[in-house]
Amino acid sequence: MTPADPHTAQANTPDQDGGQGETPDTSVSAAAELPGLDQRALAALAEVGREWERQIPPLSTWQRALPVDTDLEWGQPTRSRGARFVQIGKPRRRGESEQLEATHRAAEGDSRTSHALHALRRALIGPALRSSALAEDRIGRALALPLLSPDALSSVAYGPEAMLAILLLAGSGELKASLPISAVLAVLMLSVGLGYRQVIRAYPQGGGSYVIASEGLGHRWGLLAGAGLILDYILTVAVSVASGVEAVTSAIPSLSSARILIGLIVILLLVAGNLRGLRDAGVAFAAPTYLFVAAIALVVVTGLVKAASHGFHPAAPVPHRAVEAAGVLLLLRAFASGATAMTGIEVISNAVPIFRPPAAKHARQTLSVMVGLLIAMFVGVVLVAHFDGAEPGGSQTLLSRISHSSVGSGIGYGFVQVATTLILLVAANSAFNGFPRLLYFMARDGNMPRAFLRLGDRLAFSNGILVLALPAAIIFVAFGGHTGPLIPLFAIGVFIAFTLAQSGMVAHWLRHRERGWRSALVTNLLGAVLSGAVVVIAAITKFLQGAWLVVVLLPLIVIFCERIHGHYVRVREALTPKPDGDGRGRPTDVTAPDRRDGQRGQDSAHGAAEAADTPAEVQSFAVVPVAVLDLAALHALAYAVSLARPVLVVHVSPTEREAERFQRQWEAWGEHLPLELLVSPYRATVAPLANYIAALHHQRPESTLSLVVPEVVVARRWQKILHNRIGARLRNALIAYDGITITTVPFHVPP
Amino acid sequence: MTPADPHTAQANTPDQDGGQGETPDTSVSAAAELPGLDQRALAALAEVGREWERQIPPLSTWQRALPVDTDLEWGQPTRSRGARFVQIGKPRRRGESEQLEATHRAAEGDSRTSHALHALRRALIGPALRSSALAEDRIGRALALPLLSPDALSSVAYGPEAMLAILLLAGSGELKASLPISAVLAVLMLSVGLGYRQVIRAYPQGGGSYVIASEGLGHRWGLLAGAGLILDYILTVAVSVASGVEAVTSAIPSLSSARILIGLIVILLLVAGNLRGLRDAGVAFAAPTYLFVAAIALVVVTGLVKAASHGFHPAAPVPHRAVEAAGVLLLLRAFASGATAMTGIEVISNAVPIFRPPAAKHARQTLSVMVGLLIAMFVGVVLVAHFDGAEPGGSQTLLSRISHSSVGSGIGYGFVQVATTLILLVAANSAFNGFPRLLYFMARDGNMPRAFLRLGDRLAFSNGILVLALPAAIIFVAFGGHTGPLIPLFAIGVFIAFTLAQSGMVAHWLRHRERGWRSALVTNLLGAVLSGAVVVIAAITKFLQGAWLVVVLLPLIVIFCERIHGHYVRVREALTPKPDGDGRGRPTDVTAPDRRDGQRGQDSAHGAAEAADTPAEVQSFAVVPVAVLDLAALHALAYAVSLARPVLVVHVSPTEREAERFQRQWEAWGEHLPLELLVSPYRATVAPLANYIAALHHQRPESTLSLVVPEVVVARRWQKILHNRIGARLRNALIAYDGITITTVPFHVPP
Repeated sequence: MTPADPHTAQANTPDQDGGQGETPDTSVSAAAELPGLDQRALAALAEVGREWERQIPPLSTWQRALPVDTDLEWGQPTRSRGARFVQIGKPRRRGESEQLEATHRAAEGDSRTSHALHALRRALIGPALRSSALAEDRIGRALALPLLSPDALSSVAYGPEAMLAILLLAGSGELKASLPISAVLAVLMLSVGLGYRQVIRAYPQGGGSYVIASEGLGHRWGLLAGAGLILDYILTVAVSVASGVEAVTSAIPSLSSARILIGLIVILLLVAGNLRGLRDAGVAFAAPTYLFVAAIALVVVTGLVKAASHGFHPAAPVPHRAVEAAGVLLLLRAFASGATAMTGIEVISNAVPIFRPPAAKHARQTLSVMVGLLIAMFVGVVLVAHFDGAEPGGSQTLLSRISHSSVGSGIGYGFVQVATTLILLVAANSAFNGFPRLLYFMARDGNMPRAFLRLGDRLAFSNGILVLALPAAIIFVAFGGHTGPLIPLFAIGVFIAFTLAQSGMVAHWLRHRERGWRSALVTNLLGAVLSGAVVVIAAITKFLQGAWLVVVLLPLIVIFCERIHGHYVRVREALTPKPDGDGRGRPTDVTAPDRRDGQRGQDSAHGAAEAADTPAEVQSFAVVPVAVLDLAALHALAYAVSLARPVLVVHVSPTEREAERFQRQWEAWGEHLPLELLVSPYRATVAPLANYIAALHHQRPESTLSLVVPEVVVARRWQKILHNRIGARLRNALIAYDGITITTVPFHVPP
Repeated sequence: MTPADPHTAQANTPDQDGGQGETPDTSVSAAAELPGLDQRALAALAEVGREWERQIPPLSTWQRALPVDTDLEWGQPTRSRGARFVQIGKPRRRGESEQLEATHRAAEGDSRTSHALHALRRALIGPALRSSALAEDRIGRALALPLLSPDALSSVAYGPEAMLAILLLAGSGELKASLPISAVLAVLMLSVGLGYRQVIRAYPQGGGSYVIASEGLGHRWGLLAGAGLILDYILTVAVSVASGVEAVTSAIPSLSSARILIGLIVILLLVAGNLRGLRDAGVAFAAPTYLFVAAIALVVVTGLVKAASHGFHPAAPVPHRAVEAAGVLLLLRAFASGATAMTGIEVISNAVPIFRPPAAKHARQTLSVMVGLLIAMFVGVVLVAHFDGAEPGGSQTLLSRISHSSVGSGIGYGFVQVATTLILLVAANSAFNGFPRLLYFMARDGNMPRAFLRLGDRLAFSNGILVLALPAAIIFVAFGGHTGPLIPLFAIGVFIAFTLAQSGMVAHWLRHRERGWRSALVTNLLGAVLSGAVVVIAAITKFLQGAWLVVVLLPLIVIFCERIHGHYVRVREALTPKPDGDGRGRPTDVTAPDRRDGQRGQDSAHGAAEAADTPAEVQSFAVVPVAVLDLAALHALAYAVSLARPVLVVHVSPTEREAERFQRQWEAWGEHLPLELLVSPYRATVAPLANYIAALHHQRPESTLSLVVPEVVVARRWQKILHNRIGARLRNALIAYDGITITTVPFHVPP
């Protein structure tokens, strides 16, 4: 993050208080949600504080006045299920309050519904984890590999087939082109893999394409990389689940009619597994991944042994008539299709912090193993297919075909099929790891809603997990659970992210020139060029099949992120205390006498723009809307009068006759307060009331108008339809005005 | 309404202030929404008022303190479109405020969206009408007839056919049974019609089955009558629109595919027409009704003239084989089917107040004309069909068949078809008049949500109109625009209402014995018996075809209404000021000295149950939740301190590290107020905060806890997703506690 960049310099990194310098903190923190204040703001706070000191009594007076024990040593309601708050730490000095800790009970309500919901939640995703468990919730390489690699590895089940299917369009004679294309793909995988090893080296706390591109190339390129990954993660889930369900239904055709339901259940299980947290998810997804690796190894090794026994002479494929001419474009399309196998490679570099220390080293090793497996499996499958003369098409998948010829039709074949089905079903899991982390990083820079900073009960990014699952499920259902129309949209986003990440690394090495930067730079440059080539090829060859949608959506996402960013920057600017010296000419070192007598110094009031950041600047009067002079209204009137400020009561009547009726109630009570009667002959209530109150406020914009609204609160939710909810509507209408506070005085009625 | 009835005695009649005795006010009032207070409550108010007088300064002090001009003579924001408030009336005494009237501009907001929406609204339903126009918005008989009769009259287009279709099941020989059945139906119509004439006589301000049954037979029977009508009105709209659309599509078959769309457009037009108000609706619906009457007259007269020329010898019908045995059950089913023609008869008695005075006389005359037309048209069509030997079935409707034979195939036939289509399309309009009025009466007795008391912009019962249209449209769409499956559900509800209304009238005459009560009683008794017979016949013969649904739904509606009623009674009880002498032993004539010195008399505090209906009883302390010590927080703190009561600041942190960060901000500011730090290691924010505040409140249940919440208010709606809305969630969690007031201190951020 370069300090010169006006965008990222405003980001809400959680440690601006500490001012830890320029290195971005790419670790995950439970405290990231609350923005900090910089030194300048703290200085401004101190200045405001001195003003307060002159205006209000000292702290000890306030402490004595409090009628409650803030440490809850007495009067904490007795709970059958344990205390909600326990004291931690000692008072920092005499008379000071102790710090309280909320137990997990503090998140529950008192109602039976609340207890039941919490019990259900615990049953589904386990008990809540403490923030301090974040350091413990790390996993070893053996669990991380199956957690992060299913997306990449599972593409071996369909990547080679997609490539061969394109080549077959030019006739079976062209199938042999699969060997050189695979070699290029292997080089590409190796290059991107090595590139991401460098990423982990440079960002040992976890980075990913978004962070690297933001830093190396600038804010907007980072957003583009992020947008590409966002699209691709969503598509990955939809496509992976659809192909997993396809594998299930082709094995058990009677389930075809339930394909949508099965897919939704798989998505739900993925959500639940990931909401449970890293360790549980890793354990759950370990078996399918290792089984699949073993299955492919079996097929490839036996296939190659058989091929060796024939002296590596390829079997002649069944002759096919060409429907398209062979040519560069076709080869490029085949290449682009094969490249879809590479989605998911970047997940590990995003997720370095989930590894046990030394995290970076473990992550690099895991990445190397994953890329090695991917290349070996991909090339192996293509080779075996080549020697078998197998070709795509028909009722069987390519993998099923070569499994048959390699391991026969017995238990070995069944094992391969089961393993393939399982990995396709869990392939979406990489996306469930990558997407929420990506949104966390984007949100921390203020490019995404802050809600994505939130760590859920189980220290998982619950919001990100849910926001990934929802659009993926909608797309899955909208396309009837079929993968076909989605494939062309796929992989462009991820290759844009690859390209930008590798380019960002090139910029990084040029800037930092650490030990060995030259070779690293070459690696990343090669990765950038190759990935960029894939983007161009894929965009051109798939444009009309749907890639245009990606081309349209990406800039929209970038613009949306920039609007979010702009909003957060303006909000932060508006909320940050600013030194008063800023062009207003008030000295910062006021030498006024130390008046602690509680006298409200009117002399120190300053401009209306900064009105009311000290109590003396609050001048206010109360307005109470009353429909009927019942107990709810009296309750609100009593509260308003107790505020020790002027009070005006307003009543809106639909007719003059009704106004007289109210007048009789008012006179019976004794007319103790100023009353304004509004007749609303058009029968609107809320809008005239809101406009009248706004007009009063307009007379005294510097005064705070305290609107005190009596509100009947019902015990059951359905009973809300029985009441006119004027309070809530008035709130909505008047919240737009600066300087109007809205107080609800509830009056509870029996059910 | 018998005063002995505990249910209706609690009803929110708008004039309990005045205590106008036992006669229920069945007129429509714009002021009905606001419940009144009875003499006892007013006395209690006076008692509370005397307590206030001892506690607070006199009115003049309050008036002088107010920093604003409540009459808006200065400082009313200049509006380009005219003032929002104008003064009406004189101040009632010196120093008193004038009454203001809200112009129609007062209902509009300042935003462009608001102006555009209001302009659209005016274009669709016309400018708003003043409540005082209620007296003027009355119509003559010539407009009232087409407004209220289409439902009844249009049934001539399908009633006879439904009857003959049942008879045909027993072979064409049984068709002649249509004559005696029609005679019985004519007697039934006459009897019910005469019965409702008596209803209008007894309830000159408009009554209807619900009011009559409630009063004559008791609360629960009234609800049953109301429930029957509610179901039937909804079904009427769905069935009428469906048969209207059927008439359109059978004339122009190419429109068949758009039937759902056409039906929804018709419903929308009916809604818009009725929202525009009585007069506009009457004018719009006059032509179809009169055209249809003329068309039927043409068909019947020419048909009968032709029959006369053949000496009234019926033509032999085409022989048909019987598929069911002739028998009593079949005849009864035919009778029940024909009786559906009577739906809509009760609408006029409901709607007496819409007639120009003398309203009751005009309503009676209109009712007589309508019933006369209905009988003549119904019997006429049956007779012509009989003499023609026409029979139902095939591609043509019965009406189309006899039109052909009566007036040939030329322009006369076209006229009949067009008129029939038009009346079927507007037949639902009676329901749009009856349903909202019924709900108004039910709501005024506290049996339906009070929202149905509201008169819309155009003095129409907008809520009732919309609540009728929505389920009707859903049913229409759900059944694909077909009437078939709905017919068996139809008419049972309305005949239950007829029976209960006529029985209620019998009870009425037995009780009141006004002039001519004997003959009136006989009329109503006959009506009750005949209608009751139809209910029994229809329920038995149609039970399995769907009438069971009505049998299940009616009690559910009655129970729902009773629950609403119970809630309103309890709310009223809870809200009404009660004399303090009620068993609490405090004398009502306090002889304490007249202290107007503003001293807060702690001596007069009474029990916590009635806590805080005088200001001295309000003891409170403020709690301010603060996440970050930014300007929004300072703003809220300044406001809280200005309330002149103890203040406690609470901060929730997800980690201890974050708590320390906040502590640094707090210390920079100067620690002027008591602070409690809550660490929430499970990262929940709102629930621990709410539980902590509830625990504080639990320590001091007699004190009011003023929760002061800083709230960042965004300028654009979509930006809400960018903020965590802790204020709103805290509100929802804490509104359940008595004695916690919630104040929002808004802080506006730029867009």
